[in-house]
Amino acid sequence: MTTRTETDSIGPIQVDGDRLWGAQTERSRQNFKIGGQTFPRAFIRALGLVKLCAARANAELGELDSLDAGQRDVLMQAAQEVVDGKWDEHFPLVVWQTGSGTQTNMNANEVIANRAIQILGGELGSKTPIHPNDHCNRSQSSNDVFPTAMHVAAAEQVGGQLLPALEALAGAFDGKAREWNQVVKIGRTHLQDATPLTVGQEVSGWAQQLRDGIRALRAMLPGVYELALGGTAVGTGLNTHPRYAGLVAERIAEATGLPFVTAPNKFSALAAHDALVGLSGSLRQVAMALMKIANDVRWLGSGPRCGIGELRLPANEPGSSIMPGKVNPTQCEALTMVCTQVFGNDAAVGFAGSQGNFELNVFKPVMIHNVLQSIRLLSDACDSFRTNCVDGMELDAARVDELMRKSLMLVTALNRHVGYDNAAKIAKHAYKEGLTLRESAEALGLMSGADFDAAVIPEQMVGPREA
Amino acid sequence: MTTRTETDSIGPIQVDGDRLWGAQTERSRQNFKIGGQTFPRAFIRALGLVKLCAARANAELGELDSLDAGQRDVLMQAAQEVVDGKWDEHFPLVVWQTGSGTQTNMNANEVIANRAIQILGGELGSKTPIHPNDHCNRSQSSNDVFPTAMHVAAAEQVGGQLLPALEALAGAFDGKAREWNQVVKIGRTHLQDATPLTVGQEVSGWAQQLRDGIRALRAMLPGVYELALGGTAVGTGLNTHPRYAGLVAERIAEATGLPFVTAPNKFSALAAHDALVGLSGSLRQVAMALMKIANDVRWLGSGPRCGIGELRLPANEPGSSIMPGKVNPTQCEALTMVCTQVFGNDAAVGFAGSQGNFELNVFKPVMIHNVLQSIRLLSDACDSFRTNCVDGMELDAARVDELMRKSLMLVTALNRHVGYDNAAKIAKHAYKEGLTLRESAEALGLMSGADFDAAVIPEQMVGPREA
Amino acid sequence: MTTRTETDSIGPIQVDGDRLWGAQTERSRQNFKIGGQTFPRAFIRALGLVKLCAARANAELGELDSLDAGQRDVLMQAAQEVVDGKWDEHFPLVVWQTGSGTQTNMNANEVIANRAIQILGGELGSKTPIHPNDHCNRSQSSNDVFPTAMHVAAAEQVGGQLLPALEALAGAFDGKAREWNQVVKIGRTHLQDATPLTVGQEVSGWAQQLRDGIRALRAMLPGVYELALGGTAVGTGLNTHPRYAGLVAERIAEATGLPFVTAPNKFSALAAHDALVGLSGSLRQVAMALMKIANDVRWLGSGPRCGIGELRLPANEPGSSIMPGKVNPTQCEALTMVCTQVFGNDAAVGFAGSQGNFELNVFKPVMIHNVLQSIRLLSDACDSFRTNCVDGMELDAARVDELMRKSLMLVTALNRHVGYDNAAKIAKHAYKEGLTLRESAEALGLMSGADFDAAVIPEQMVGPREA
Amino acid sequence: MTTRTETDSIGPIQVDGDRLWGAQTERSRQNFKIGGQTFPRAFIRALGLVKLCAARANAELGELDSLDAGQRDVLMQAAQEVVDGKWDEHFPLVVWQTGSGTQTNMNANEVIANRAIQILGGELGSKTPIHPNDHCNRSQSSNDVFPTAMHVAAAEQVGGQLLPALEALAGAFDGKAREWNQVVKIGRTHLQDATPLTVGQEVSGWAQQLRDGIRALRAMLPGVYELALGGTAVGTGLNTHPRYAGLVAERIAEATGLPFVTAPNKFSALAAHDALVGLSGSLRQVAMALMKIANDVRWLGSGPRCGIGELRLPANEPGSSIMPGKVNPTQCEALTMVCTQVFGNDAAVGFAGSQGNFELNVFKPVMIHNVLQSIRLLSDACDSFRTNCVDGMELDAARVDELMRKSLMLVTALNRHVGYDNAAKIAKHAYKEGLTLRESAEALGLMSGADFDAAVIPEQMVGPREA
Repeated sequence: MTTRTETDSIGPIQVDGDRLWGAQTERSRQNFKIGGQTFPRAFIRALGLVKLCAARANAELGELDSLDAGQRDVLMQAAQEVVDGKWDEHFPLVVWQTGSGTQTNMNANEVIANRAIQILGGELGSKTPIHPNDHCNRSQSSNDVFPTAMHVAAAEQVGGQLLPALEALAGAFDGKAREWNQVVKIGRTHLQDATPLTVGQEVSGWAQQLRDGIRALRAMLPGVYELALGGTAVGTGLNTHPRYAGLVAERIAEATGLPFVTAPNKFSALAAHDALVGLSGSLRQVAMALMKIANDVRWLGSGPRCGIGELRLPANEPGSSIMPGKVNPTQCEALTMVCTQVFGNDAAVGFAGSQGNFELNVFKPVMIHNVLQSIRLLSDACDSFRTNCVDGMELDAARVDELMRKSLMLVTALNRHVGYDNAAKIAKHAYKEGLTLRESAEALGLMSGADFDAAVIPEQMVGPREA
Repeated sequence: MTTRTETDSIGPIQVDGDRLWGAQTERSRQNFKIGGQTFPRAFIRALGLVKLCAARANAELGELDSLDAGQRDVLMQAAQEVVDGKWDEHFPLVVWQTGSGTQTNMNANEVIANRAIQILGGELGSKTPIHPNDHCNRSQSSNDVFPTAMHVAAAEQVGGQLLPALEALAGAFDGKAREWNQVVKIGRTHLQDATPLTVGQEVSGWAQQLRDGIRALRAMLPGVYELALGGTAVGTGLNTHPRYAGLVAERIAEATGLPFVTAPNKFSALAAHDALVGLSGSLRQVAMALMKIANDVRWLGSGPRCGIGELRLPANEPGSSIMPGKVNPTQCEALTMVCTQVFGNDAAVGFAGSQGNFELNVFKPVMIHNVLQSIRLLSDACDSFRTNCVDGMELDAARVDELMRKSLMLVTALNRHVGYDNAAKIAKHAYKEGLTLRESAEALGLMSGADFDAAVIPEQMVGPREA
Repeated sequence: MTTRTETDSIGPIQVDGDRLWGAQTERSRQNFKIGGQTFPRAFIRALGLVKLCAARANAELGELDSLDAGQRDVLMQAAQEVVDGKWDEHFPLVVWQTGSGTQTNMNANEVIANRAIQILGGELGSKTPIHPNDHCNRSQSSNDVFPTAMHVAAAEQVGGQLLPALEALAGAFDGKAREWNQVVKIGRTHLQDATPLTVGQEVSGWAQQLRDGIRALRAMLPGVYELALGGTAVGTGLNTHPRYAGLVAERIAEATGLPFVTAPNKFSALAAHDALVGLSGSLRQVAMALMKIANDVRWLGSGPRCGIGELRLPANEPGSSIMPGKVNPTQCEALTMVCTQVFGNDAAVGFAGSQGNFELNVFKPVMIHNVLQSIRLLSDACDSFRTNCVDGMELDAARVDELMRKSLMLVTALNRHVGYDNAAKIAKHAYKEGLTLRESAEALGLMSGADFDAAVIPEQMVGPREA
Repeated sequence: MTTRTETDSIGPIQVDGDRLWGAQTERSRQNFKIGGQTFPRAFIRALGLVKLCAARANAELGELDSLDAGQRDVLMQAAQEVVDGKWDEHFPLVVWQTGSGTQTNMNANEVIANRAIQILGGELGSKTPIHPNDHCNRSQSSNDVFPTAMHVAAAEQVGGQLLPALEALAGAFDGKAREWNQVVKIGRTHLQDATPLTVGQEVSGWAQQLRDGIRALRAMLPGVYELALGGTAVGTGLNTHPRYAGLVAERIAEATGLPFVTAPNKFSALAAHDALVGLSGSLRQVAMALMKIANDVRWLGSGPRCGIGELRLPANEPGSSIMPGKVNPTQCEALTMVCTQVFGNDAAVGFAGSQGNFELNVFKPVMIHNVLQSIRLLSDACDSFRTNCVDGMELDAARVDELMRKSLMLVTALNRHVGYDNAAKIAKHAYKEGLTLRESAEALGLMSGADFDAAVIPEQMVGPREA
């Protein structure tokens, strides 16, 4: 392996000759052998977008006039290649580095500079004619670049991955709710038999929870659309053109199709990441909703002979290495495990978000790592759950009907006829003696069988009274 | 102590003769000797409001026609007294009871029924002429009453206590930001000296974080304004008049002045409390923001002689039982402790929120207990912090200026004059040799003193370049 | 209401004449109107114990020679009264105060001094002849007193309340495990029917989890037995007699009957409370175990007609305000709510425990508040769950047998006879066609009925093969 | 790419011809496209160890007599190759799969069977002569294999990586504590100047925290050493030889050199993972301790000119892309980010640990994923922090001395001479008038300069009085 010499303000350092990164990336690579977790594609893309749009804004404002037009174009071309994922393997740094992400910002600057130099036929590491700091990082600081990339990545992934996945899952439940709209089943509260509802009603609650989650995510996006870029080192915008902050946000909005704007206050935009804490809270809300939904699905599918057994879930894998023929609700399990992970990720994000000091929060990489992981896990898991479980789940209508018919809680329909206290007596007598409610009502002399039949009609118990 | 006999569907039970509660309350009181934590005033008020408005809606719809008009008025009067706090000591049940809050709902029904009977000159415990179930709980179930009271209490406390407290604190920071708008200070990133900003700019970031928190709370309120009432036992609205759900939400909106509406889906409104999980997430965001702010305040006030010492905080109590004359940032400490508590409360709320099954989440009391405690703690702590610390804090302007002048990071102003790499040499040489930047620049032959003076003007480093 | 003047280093302040507290308590009472949560009895007792034992050690070492013997006795008498709970209402301060608990330490000093003065016939507030700092706080600082009281309170409550409650609950499960030791039931994995086990075996797992929790708690106690006292302000032991630290720990050990020792390093004992973070982690482990156990109990008791229905839980309260005759697993619900609270409390403790700086952690009150609340909630809830649920729960043996007999997973017994793949075919065919396993095995020609009967004996499937 | 046909109880499926895995692995690979996170080396190794030792125990007990001796040897050879990491790329399954890890267990069975077949010259996928279920999984179930591998992996990583890393870091602090044992510095409590201590004393507190963490981890290992293996499907040990459970634990103990034993109760060993919840709690304790330590280090190193500046940290990378010459405490930042991640991981582990039902907890993969990640992150980060920061950090002795000398809290030494109240007056007067304590004492006529000099000797304030 050949190497070349790269330099930074600390001095020279050898870098693998095949790699486009420079001295600062190399130092960080050697100094942080921790955990092996690098940044995902979504983040490298966002970082590239920031660099690209900063170059565009700088060029428009004459801030790159030390380069000629061709050099400026090449700089933007190199940035575009980072956006496109061409150089992902040249971003070797782990999450567990400096808390500002400085070396990852420099990684982008170094790769773009060297790539531009390469295109222009120059010498890698020469910083000529494209300099990683003076040109690629022009009007920028890691302190505003990194949180901007955090917001861009999070917003793109929520909008492009998670919201569609949630909508699709809610849509799948809508379909099931319509399909099972007339099937009356026993309700369960406290895990105990309760008054009836339709299967469609039950499923509609799941769809509603997902739509509430979508609303919560959308409600948090306005803060995520506010970008730190233009604040530079401490939020003042030192060394920037006065029109730069607004212009670069416009360029990012154009490039992404999302309504990004420049943050109204750059000091908090560097020193705190409350918008991501809030977004993570909404991701947590979605996860907690999915936990409930997936639990319901697997409990309704419990059995096949010794559980509830109202739902039949698709059999995707053999369920046991020792019990032949066993089928398990594996998609539910993957989803609920994801939910606990998102819960944990959110705890990390909240904690980290509180630990800023003065002009900077230095927990940026861990925050975006967890936010992006939560988004991906939820997106993937919703898709997997939908296609491998929900779409194929079927109702065991006979079982649903059998359970509903024998429930004692149909007695609730009698409250208006014999009062709560007498109705309670009927139910308790039936339970104790193993009777049907009808038999019990007659035995206690509280109602005739005919009156009972007229009063207890499950199909009429699934909504308010007729007007 | 005299007792009287109260009865429920389980049988008779003795109750303290001085108390208005009935059999179910008494049973729960005896069966749940856990932790001793009862519900706060805000919740009892909300529960009373639900009962009052349900009675109003029922009366309008003819659902209480088994009572005469005078009896209906007395029922409402009794409910109003619960709203007003007249009977708080008659609500003895702890949070750690049934997860639906059934006995607390019955507590309200029993107190209102007995109080109405008392006014009407009847016999306590007779359930005549006002019956706790058939009248007070008319068209209701614990399963919809309790979550409705949760939403009403949370919305009232956020709107009436927390948002004003946050606004007032943000306003206090606004005032300080204006006052200190022209004072240039050293910025600090990574706890290390950085480029300057004004004290006003720094403080403006705190105000912005609070305003972002307010925005996050407001963004979560629409879900909280959606009420479960009308869903009764499992969400179907069994036993209710078809116009009841909408009407009772209207009555609650009138009584509170808040835009409550009936929930679009009652199944999720009983089986999940995602709106409160989301709200708790925003409370957590606010707490994490306050953690950062309070930490900044105490660090800036650290000293008096061996810390940063830019701020002087009010001396409210002797700071030490052993070190005479010590003064500590006690308000910051109370606030940061509150922030960690809110963080923990939020973890409990999220976990509990995920644990619903089928038609009911049975973690209702623990959820609202934590949400209301977080709201109160944040409200109280913001008020205390503002009046006992922020309002009285003063700038040590001489100290601020001294630190700013000697910082090496003013060198950043030279990037545009000598480039990043040369500027770094100047700073490092100054640090190593104990020189000023000016001396270092001259010593290295990179700039004349006059050029340095023209380039490094801290007051011009606190914003973008002049246009 | 009459008042008297009390003074501290800030100046004079008026205090309610009926109260024994002094100036610093009064200031804190006025300055921290936050949340209204005071310290529990267990903590005030521990604080009194620290004061009592410090006085004893000081007296032995001649550190209180400025008092005469009678005065020293009275000082100790006053401290003993605090231990005994005689003056709890004179400890009005909330958790949300200074993070060192300084004013609560001073509260103890002031109450003890004033009470001693009162006994001696002196003037309240005169600090003569007993001075709150110079005598009551002799050889102490809030910084070592408060964490010592934290450890004493936590250790006493774990040892005196929680461990007995857990042992008793484990014992109750032991009894049920013995009682149901021969009853074979269907196992459930992934909520799906699995191979059989005995009810006693299942219950034994719950007892084991509790015993594992007890082991985890005990494993954390050695750190809790290490006391900060003797470290004074920053851990150095400034102003103390060289034998004081060891002696006072001995006195505390004697007074409590617990093996307290002086902490090997006083710097970490003031600056961190890792032993309580660890203890809280074990409390969390116990809570997570109880969550699983309580969930199992309520799921096994689900029904009565549409659930699993293997267990019958005691009917302690009417279960619904609208559904007559409903009975719910309310003790399980209270317990699981407690578990989520302990989970949240633990998150607060861990976070707070990480936030120390230099020589002091100033999150002491919030840490001990949460630790003690978790201990109490778990203790109370275990007792309540045991006496109100476990002791009275009964097996529905017919239901247990019916479910076991019809399960398909008895097929696992055939692995050794026909191999996994053929056994799977038998189970799947039975499921698809609604057959018994025996019928399916015959239909597929894989086994004769007689061979099947010899191979599949549920009672022989609940352990390893005979040797 | 060529494929071959593999089969399981669901039917045939095509698998990449280059891969050793079989039908069940392939199904899981296709059905769970979630998150892309696979299991780490440490876990695959542990899984291989379980398979190897199970084969050994089975062979000893005659359970593999359907194979000849050579075949048995080859089966063990194949398992050993998995232990050694030769086939890691043949374990493609993600964490987010079935919650029992069934397909990962089958992945091991399939790879070992196919590899053994390959060595024996048979046909891949033929299951002949080595069958993945009947031989590789002999006497096992995923339900006991997977938790056994969890315990083996966690115990090996704690013992082999984390404890040594913590010991080394504590040792590094010991060295610094000795080096700086005589240097007196100002103490800081509440961030405010307090009484002095030596730098060595301060650093000793960090070492103590790490040793307390080591103790906490060790205290949790006994539970981790208890292995589920032998429980098979539901804990009963169905289909196993009566001596198998004990024997296989012995074999694992031999192979690892760790004191593994068979779990005393297999029902809880499958249905709960409380030992890992407890271990995770201790990992969290360690992380919270490291958070405090790393924060202290970076605050003491804050500056260089506008902070505390008592420590000089190594300059490993350029600190800013915009501020030339800036050096940041990047190792501290990486470490504190790791601490927040471990905090979040622990939250996920605790939550997941509570969610077992009946005979199985189906959150196994997410639990071990988080536990192993926390162990690795802490191990790596401690090593990185030690070698890149602690070892090279230096004291700025002049700065330390300057700050100590000017502190007002040396006044505490006067308590025993003039009483607390007078000492407070001296300190406050000095603060207000900008005097030294000596000047203030004289000005107030409370002490002569000579008496002051005799009383206030910082070097004598760093411990108890002379005996």
